[in-house]
Amino acid sequence: MRMVDLIVKKQEGKELSREEIRFLIEGYTNDTIPDYQMSAFAMAVYFQDMTDQERVEFTMAIAESGDQIDLSEIEGIKVDKHSTGGVGDTTTLVLAPLVASIGVPVAKMSGRGLGHTGGTIDKLESIPGFRVEIAEQTFIDLVNKNKVAVVGQSGDLCPADKKLYALRDVTGTVNSLPLIAGSIMSKKIAAGADAIVLDVKVGAGAFMKSIEDAEELAHAMVAIGNLAGRNTMAIISDMSQPLGFAVGNALEIEEAIETLKGKGPADLEELCLELGAQMVYLGERATSLSEAKELLKVKLHNGEALEKFKEFIAAQDGNPEVVNDYSLMPQAKDKKEVLAEEEGYVAEINADSIGVAAMSLGAGRATKESEIDLAAGLILHKKVGDTVKKGDILVTLFANDKDFSEAEALVHASYQFRKQKNKPTLIHEVITD
Amino acid sequence: MRMVDLIVKKQEGKELSREEIRFLIEGYTNDTIPDYQMSAFAMAVYFQDMTDQERVEFTMAIAESGDQIDLSEIEGIKVDKHSTGGVGDTTTLVLAPLVASIGVPVAKMSGRGLGHTGGTIDKLESIPGFRVEIAEQTFIDLVNKNKVAVVGQSGDLCPADKKLYALRDVTGTVNSLPLIAGSIMSKKIAAGADAIVLDVKVGAGAFMKSIEDAEELAHAMVAIGNLAGRNTMAIISDMSQPLGFAVGNALEIEEAIETLKGKGPADLEELCLELGAQMVYLGERATSLSEAKELLKVKLHNGEALEKFKEFIAAQDGNPEVVNDYSLMPQAKDKKEVLAEEEGYVAEINADSIGVAAMSLGAGRATKESEIDLAAGLILHKKVGDTVKKGDILVTLFANDKDFSEAEALVHASYQFRKQKNKPTLIHEVITD
Repeated sequence: MRMVDLIVKKQEGKELSREEIRFLIEGYTNDTIPDYQMSAFAMAVYFQDMTDQERVEFTMAIAESGDQIDLSEIEGIKVDKHSTGGVGDTTTLVLAPLVASIGVPVAKMSGRGLGHTGGTIDKLESIPGFRVEIAEQTFIDLVNKNKVAVVGQSGDLCPADKKLYALRDVTGTVNSLPLIAGSIMSKKIAAGADAIVLDVKVGAGAFMKSIEDAEELAHAMVAIGNLAGRNTMAIISDMSQPLGFAVGNALEIEEAIETLKGKGPADLEELCLELGAQMVYLGERATSLSEAKELLKVKLHNGEALEKFKEFIAAQDGNPEVVNDYSLMPQAKDKKEVLAEEEGYVAEINADSIGVAAMSLGAGRATKESEIDLAAGLILHKKVGDTVKKGDILVTLFANDKDFSEAEALVHASYQFRKQKNKPTLIHEVITD
Repeated sequence: MRMVDLIVKKQEGKELSREEIRFLIEGYTNDTIPDYQMSAFAMAVYFQDMTDQERVEFTMAIAESGDQIDLSEIEGIKVDKHSTGGVGDTTTLVLAPLVASIGVPVAKMSGRGLGHTGGTIDKLESIPGFRVEIAEQTFIDLVNKNKVAVVGQSGDLCPADKKLYALRDVTGTVNSLPLIAGSIMSKKIAAGADAIVLDVKVGAGAFMKSIEDAEELAHAMVAIGNLAGRNTMAIISDMSQPLGFAVGNALEIEEAIETLKGKGPADLEELCLELGAQMVYLGERATSLSEAKELLKVKLHNGEALEKFKEFIAAQDGNPEVVNDYSLMPQAKDKKEVLAEEEGYVAEINADSIGVAAMSLGAGRATKESEIDLAAGLILHKKVGDTVKKGDILVTLFANDKDFSEAEALVHASYQFRKQKNKPTLIHEVITD
């Protein structure tokens, strides 16, 4: 088999076989296929797409290109959730204890990664004493006992994806549906998920700018998951503004706790209930999505979800008192209120710019070496549809010894106003097959 | 300027500016743009094509990526001719003295290259004493004096093309019209041509398999040439069989001399008159193509073209007596007649297979290091439309201490017979703008 023939086959719009796709991914992983052939192939895929069968073979070949997590010792159906490029997305922190409280096992492996804020494990480290570096067996035992545990990702998952993603980034092939879908799904599968729930964000501040694009990506990923034997569902949710009010690490933990107390932002709670319902249904703890949602509402409002959160925190040596005293978490020395310079109704808040603002305050990592300030971030006081008068507080910024001017300018740039009031639809679509 | 942005621009079907194309070719030539970006760009061009303006900028950027030959000291309009992938193509050897006899300067720089037979300079070295390594000033003086000289190519012409061609070969991007056209035209322009005549071959044994593809390539190259200020014309000629009878080095010299005596194969003479007419017209030695063709016919049949050949040979220290005594050239020790095993009319002779047969006898170079046997090659005795009976001689093979079996099998494989007689059209189209 020669790589050049596979490139030409795809270029001509023909379907590659399982063996051909394996050859290609294995060869690329072990460096026998050079970057210049893979980039030409990726560009051919951009123009000629892949069939559903090719997409699943491609995804599985990437999933199997490195270490794969074995969660078979954990009882029950392991349901994983993935959100595509949200900002201030606190859903994981709420969902983990929430669905665990219904008996769905949540075995979360999380990386630190780059981004506007830290990853889930960075956020959890805002809680005094919390340990994310636990042994594999301890992790499994904890999930079996409490139904929830979070561990820092170890091992070399999907090396083919890491290499290919870096290549796509510099060769104009990021924006290819089968390549995006394969990249996301391979990582979920390698991480041991039995079932997968996807939250595809759409909007000016998200990776997918139009609902049509988001739908296409969601359907592609659901098809891959189901063909790969992992029951998969998806939601298309709005990113015409950040979710909730908080963007930061300790700030998002606080918001998650409020939500688990039944007092969180309405949009965050609504999305958690939708995603949670799919997780509970796929985890076979309810026989319909509506039944699942009712169960979740009960747990959120009777305190059981909050209790599960405390149990989870305590099991990983964190101080569960944090739920009653947020000042146990890192606090910023400085804060600055950003005041409205225009008036009208908020029409849109560019989530990406808000994310960059948070990062400029120290909440996220620009490079692997960056140090995160867990206390840094921001709180939105005005969301889409709210009335704003000149001088109203739009956003409060939190940081330690930072110049606020860049973040302030970004906040102003991200708010769009208009004369008519509009309310965005949070859930654009629920995709169950 | 970032290469990834240029890749995306082309991917989206937009037109690149002169500056962008220069950035891309210059960066690739000096290794600041890596292969993996150029291959992705080439694949995007395959799918999105280039506009006429992009094609000419691309061609000129490649032409200017290395050394450029300055022929300005030569009087008159320097007209160059290029054939795309012919086999047994003796036209250059006939055309050089033929059009020179009418006063069109022929300043031919030729490489040795790889292929079924040697290049023009290898062929000329079959003539005892002939020197192709002459000083630049001597070369210019000879063309000014005799209107014709041939020199081995020196200098680093179009390094961007060499690099890009090698990359295209392994990334499935050989078959892209703007890339093919740019590759051919850049070399002609870098070699100092004021005007260009193109002979685009079409047929099973040629690079262009269909007349439509050949037409598209010819029109593309003519447009590039004219936009680049080089008057350009083209002919689309048949390659459903090799041109003439001889394939080899000394064998083709002999055939060229026969043609200059007015006794050559009909198809070779016809094509030389068509191409020569365009060269003479573009060289402004005739006011119409038909007038040019009449002038050429006269020179071919009154001996003046042959005299010009002798003058040209003698001026480069070759023995002009060769025109009267072919045995002065290398002769093969062994020959073998390939006899027909079928009967009928010859329907097609795959030129590519015939070329490979000649190469297997030692007539061409498979690698740069291969040594050419100037005496080796073959003579076709039957051409398309001829009647063949079992046992008739199809081809005579010539070699020195070689096993004939591979060549014999290739000859048999290349001949196709049928019951009805057909005559191929030699000149499919003449493209003058």
